[in-house]
Amino acid sequence: MPEQAILLLSGGMDSTTLLYQLRRTQPETELHTVSIDYGQRHRIELDFAEQLSGQAGAASHRVLPLDLTSIGGSPLTDPNLDVPAAKADAQIDTVVPFRNMLFVTLAAACGETLGAHDIYLSPVRDDYAAYRDCRREFYDSLQSCLRLGASKDGEFRIHTPLINHIKVEVVAMGLNLAVPFAQTHTCYEGWRPACGVCDACSERRSAFAANDSIDPLEYETGGQSAP
Amino acid sequence: MPEQAILLLSGGMDSTTLLYQLRRTQPETELHTVSIDYGQRHRIELDFAEQLSGQAGAASHRVLPLDLTSIGGSPLTDPNLDVPAAKADAQIDTVVPFRNMLFVTLAAACGETLGAHDIYLSPVRDDYAAYRDCRREFYDSLQSCLRLGASKDGEFRIHTPLINHIKVEVVAMGLNLAVPFAQTHTCYEGWRPACGVCDACSERRSAFAANDSIDPLEYETGGQSAP
Repeated sequence: MPEQAILLLSGGMDSTTLLYQLRRTQPETELHTVSIDYGQRHRIELDFAEQLSGQAGAASHRVLPLDLTSIGGSPLTDPNLDVPAAKADAQIDTVVPFRNMLFVTLAAACGETLGAHDIYLSPVRDDYAAYRDCRREFYDSLQSCLRLGASKDGEFRIHTPLINHIKVEVVAMGLNLAVPFAQTHTCYEGWRPACGVCDACSERRSAFAANDSIDPLEYETGGQSAP
Repeated sequence: MPEQAILLLSGGMDSTTLLYQLRRTQPETELHTVSIDYGQRHRIELDFAEQLSGQAGAASHRVLPLDLTSIGGSPLTDPNLDVPAAKADAQIDTVVPFRNMLFVTLAAACGETLGAHDIYLSPVRDDYAAYRDCRREFYDSLQSCLRLGASKDGEFRIHTPLINHIKVEVVAMGLNLAVPFAQTHTCYEGWRPACGVCDACSERRSAFAANDSIDPLEYETGGQSAP
């Protein structure tokens, strides 16, 4: 069990569930949470991430700025592009190239400064098809790269404990851990109440419904996501 | 020969020499230059990079912001830390963790958007000992990682043509290519005229002296770097 670890905490359901799971299973580990301010539309999740980190008893919380707007190409950071509504290939449209690679590398840079070499993040199985940088083979490669580029060889470990779990299972875990899901943000539009119809909202509502559970989040459209 | 390529151009001697070399050897390649604004003290190099890109006939120039100040730990971005003067272990003190990894990944993200999958950068042999992310084994690993994380498999190539050359040889190449060295920036302090005594200035002056050549740059201390 690492003495210190870093968790990439977006303030969404997956990383928040992982935050509570780590606090439950590794209460002795000094857990530093890191959020990336990449100019996302749903900026409210940055505030929630900070709140959740404190509530869960993390040792520290950092917000690292990463301006991806000059790279372009994604509606998540480009206000001139529309966010796709729920459809089969919706995920692919919202990809910022190498976003997770940049996030993990920034977290590792913080880790070098702090002396923390265990990095946790929360890709889930649902992301596998559309996001190539949500696959374990990618993280194995990234881990090798961090080990070669770090000040000392072999220290960094990338942990992705949810990678073989689907969103429905993550919600089940979170319910078990009493994760305050009302404070987690999901909506791509960045709305509070959430829009209820974007790809992310639809996926979230389905996951709660599949757990026969009520999503405590308020929605603008379509009422509560009761089963 | 790639139809399009990206060059990480800092405005220093090495990347500027590579710029001129690529324009000479691959005049048909559409070369996009990318500079990273990482809050460096020597901000003047960003202006020089833009000028040099245009003069050399690059197809486009971009400045990507990357705020590393919140990671801390390096005098290159932290105004509260002193820049080390020339000494044997001076390089290690100025390392920003995973700086090159972040730079290349940002360049690759631009490349995804532009459809350019060949990335050039200019680590040199002198950097090998102190900077672990200036070694080819690191770039081989990073290349694998980019290929796994990109929208399509196997497309990215990282080129480091100067990696086995020492600074003295790079200056020789640059002199042959008529690189306008007066417009390249080196001084860690960010001074114009250059300080002449920081590790970077010392190394530069020695490289010109070893070539029996006059560095066209003005120095604050110690006069011209005549041989």
